[in-house]
Amino acid sequence: MPARRHLPTVVLVVLAGATASEEELPLSLGQINPLLVKAEYAVRGRLLNRAMELEEDLKAGVSLPFKKIVRCNIGNPQALGQKPLSFVRQTLSLVLNPDLLKEPTVRAIYPADVLERAEAYLASVPSAGAYSDSQGIQLVREHVADFISKRDGHPASARDIFLTDGASAGVKALMQMLMRGPHDAVIAPVPQYPLYSATTTLLNGTLSPYYLDESAAWGVTEAELNAALVRATAKGASARALVVINPGNPTGQSLPKPVVVKILEFCAMHGLVLMADEVYQENVYGNAPKFTSFKQALAEVTAKGAPWAQHAQLVSFHSTSKGFIGECGLRGGYFELQNVPDDVRAQLTKLASISLCSNVVGQFAAGLMVKPPQEGEASFTTYAAERAGILASMFSRAKLIAEALNKLPGLSCNAAEGAMYLFPRIHLPAKAIAAAEAEGMVADEWYCIRLLEATGLVVVPGSGFGQEDGSFHFRTTFLPQKDDLEVVLPKLADFQTKFMKEYASEKDEV
Amino acid sequence: MPARRHLPTVVLVVLAGATASEEELPLSLGQINPLLVKAEYAVRGRLLNRAMELEEDLKAGVSLPFKKIVRCNIGNPQALGQKPLSFVRQTLSLVLNPDLLKEPTVRAIYPADVLERAEAYLASVPSAGAYSDSQGIQLVREHVADFISKRDGHPASARDIFLTDGASAGVKALMQMLMRGPHDAVIAPVPQYPLYSATTTLLNGTLSPYYLDESAAWGVTEAELNAALVRATAKGASARALVVINPGNPTGQSLPKPVVVKILEFCAMHGLVLMADEVYQENVYGNAPKFTSFKQALAEVTAKGAPWAQHAQLVSFHSTSKGFIGECGLRGGYFELQNVPDDVRAQLTKLASISLCSNVVGQFAAGLMVKPPQEGEASFTTYAAERAGILASMFSRAKLIAEALNKLPGLSCNAAEGAMYLFPRIHLPAKAIAAAEAEGMVADEWYCIRLLEATGLVVVPGSGFGQEDGSFHFRTTFLPQKDDLEVVLPKLADFQTKFMKEYASEKDEV
Repeated sequence: MPARRHLPTVVLVVLAGATASEEELPLSLGQINPLLVKAEYAVRGRLLNRAMELEEDLKAGVSLPFKKIVRCNIGNPQALGQKPLSFVRQTLSLVLNPDLLKEPTVRAIYPADVLERAEAYLASVPSAGAYSDSQGIQLVREHVADFISKRDGHPASARDIFLTDGASAGVKALMQMLMRGPHDAVIAPVPQYPLYSATTTLLNGTLSPYYLDESAAWGVTEAELNAALVRATAKGASARALVVINPGNPTGQSLPKPVVVKILEFCAMHGLVLMADEVYQENVYGNAPKFTSFKQALAEVTAKGAPWAQHAQLVSFHSTSKGFIGECGLRGGYFELQNVPDDVRAQLTKLASISLCSNVVGQFAAGLMVKPPQEGEASFTTYAAERAGILASMFSRAKLIAEALNKLPGLSCNAAEGAMYLFPRIHLPAKAIAAAEAEGMVADEWYCIRLLEATGLVVVPGSGFGQEDGSFHFRTTFLPQKDDLEVVLPKLADFQTKFMKEYASEKDEV
Repeated sequence: MPARRHLPTVVLVVLAGATASEEELPLSLGQINPLLVKAEYAVRGRLLNRAMELEEDLKAGVSLPFKKIVRCNIGNPQALGQKPLSFVRQTLSLVLNPDLLKEPTVRAIYPADVLERAEAYLASVPSAGAYSDSQGIQLVREHVADFISKRDGHPASARDIFLTDGASAGVKALMQMLMRGPHDAVIAPVPQYPLYSATTTLLNGTLSPYYLDESAAWGVTEAELNAALVRATAKGASARALVVINPGNPTGQSLPKPVVVKILEFCAMHGLVLMADEVYQENVYGNAPKFTSFKQALAEVTAKGAPWAQHAQLVSFHSTSKGFIGECGLRGGYFELQNVPDDVRAQLTKLASISLCSNVVGQFAAGLMVKPPQEGEASFTTYAAERAGILASMFSRAKLIAEALNKLPGLSCNAAEGAMYLFPRIHLPAKAIAAAEAEGMVADEWYCIRLLEATGLVVVPGSGFGQEDGSFHFRTTFLPQKDDLEVVLPKLADFQTKFMKEYASEKDEV
């Protein structure tokens, strides 16, 4: 063993007794990155912690007003009983264990198109256990490009596709590329899924909100987009990007095509990258405006020769976590670039390569999402029935909950046009607001904790998404299965009625 | 459709003709985050791009001096023919497709312990397709803690374990927590796996190197650790953390226990978080010092009552990508915290929750790595044979390559004690250095491109990892299968002999 490997003890002699106090250690709350401490992400915050305590109580046999915690805080369909698509899971099981393909008895139980897809995927990589190219597996990126081409009626290219660990990883990569400091602002909706605000905070950027119009089905208005530019300037920042979540999270609206086009134009005119969070594109219900991708809108205006179109920089995000596939845990997703130069694309590839690649199972899950069984293929009937069942059930649950909420005093709720959420307004009486203040809590959080403790229902306070000052909301998914809803909705009705009796006075507008 | 959703066209009128030029767009090279542009990650850089071009040439039938590109640039075992462990893949196939458990003919082909483990995993989550807790699945974290307890002979707790997408994601999270700006430095080895330098650059922190001693089997010396503190100060920064990669990447050394203890003490005395990259802990070969985890060393000095031990903050990283499991594509990993207060742990949980969770298949892969079949269980014989085969083969290939390199003029190479890499020194003649300069290239990169073009062997220039000024190296994995080595090593010998004939003069020390 070479002598120089042993460190002499001289350091010890010099520094003995000089150890830091706990508050001086680098991993202590006062010493770590204050931007991390400042970042907020309410979807898994205080409410969830309280829910986990109550769950422990239930397990320990404590008597509570409910027998089950119903987690509506997060869009996590399979946690609430949604079954995975057979085609997806069958294919992945073969990709992970190719030995199954050698067993005739096993092959016999798999549909032919599943066998075929698994073999194609296995041929596209050395192994599911090998790092892929940083940008993602070429074959899967080609399938994504085909999907986009068919969806929009305009060509897409695998070169523009990056496969990511869910949409979140893609959003973070883009934001990291865009934000240089507090003078750079991102314009984002309020209410808003807090990934955007949290990431902006972590990157020391500035967030400038545009408020969605609750009175017009959470619509996007030009006045608010312009106001957001002004708000950025007032904070000493220039806007670099605009985030749109369509269909909306937490607000559930589906944007009509003319609005999609106008937002694109607004971004191009103001030199903003449009970050289009389109993870709920399959979740549009009933008579709502049908989903229009920003990519399609861009292709159309480009084809029409709009002078601004060639400079409209667009990044659109998609995920395996939502839609009717609901594979949150597999962390699959992608983003597509439009009008982004090659040298910038190379920087994104480099950024991806620092983490080596997104997870390969998630990459294949993205492939299975965008290239499902086609009519005539062995899995098609099952696939189509599973898809129809999941979507119909989601829509019916959305209506059921919205109707239940709208019947209650002190609550009002826009219909869910899309996504997986309702964002009802809580018309909190002054006495309730005062009671929350007396306990040192934000009023909607205080309300949501009372709701949880009375019903077992976990929702997220509106303050976690932002909301107009003086208004209060909560976000709830409509993902619980009907059985659970039949138990929890009457409890909610009972809670709300008693709550309003306790806190409302004649002066309150309810 | 509510009228307010439609944006009027007034914006267009005002701004027509005001579109930005390409260089002014937010996603253009001059406008994006300069820290991203500055970050370097050579493992997938220029050499790999050239290799991909040559691979296309081969496909197109172009005649080259080789028939195959052999990728030794990255530790990606399954890309070079290593078979996955049967136990791992069998279990994961059932977790992803639980319907298989219902088929008696399928159950019959799976070993009993695989069926059992799959059932335990399925019972631990609602579905592999559901988001898990942000910190990772409780059952898997318990298995990780058991593994550490047994490995070290000291208790570990699931509370201290965070499951991550490979080790890289954990390193990035910790660095994001630690780095507040250019005045914060991280001390890291040179040569060094460039994740640390790239992440430091991205976070606008300062990197302060300590040089490994090539003449003493790439050992860590006290003089260099102290020098790194001084170098940080000279850059106007204070050191916050010290990175150790043990076994080393790219240098392959395995640190003896006294050195491990001394480094820990050095960190505690100087108030540095010790970031211990221990992803190659299963890859220690032959007579090399056996792996000692920093956790074990800390537990021992704590038990002995060392006054500094209670303030020794340690984060150790592990991964499913290395060892003999080699599941890079699944992106599984974890880190363990020691002496980190609860409020800081909560901040890490929040950071994890912004990305929701690490991928669930990777989480289970980590579980399968740390809790393999035990003697007496149905899979044990197969598992033990696979493990022994992979490790013996790696060691024999490491020796084969090191011996081949050491026979060649102008090359010298320390034995690989651990990890998956050799880091031979290239004694570049002055004429070669001048030739590289004339082509405007770093000399080792110029050499590696010539090597690639002559042999098909892809390695990474030493400059991608850092090296002492005036010295030149390359990193090569020893992962290619023997068949490929038998083809490529003679080509390498031929290349190097001719190269030295062409460039060396009598004045050069070879």
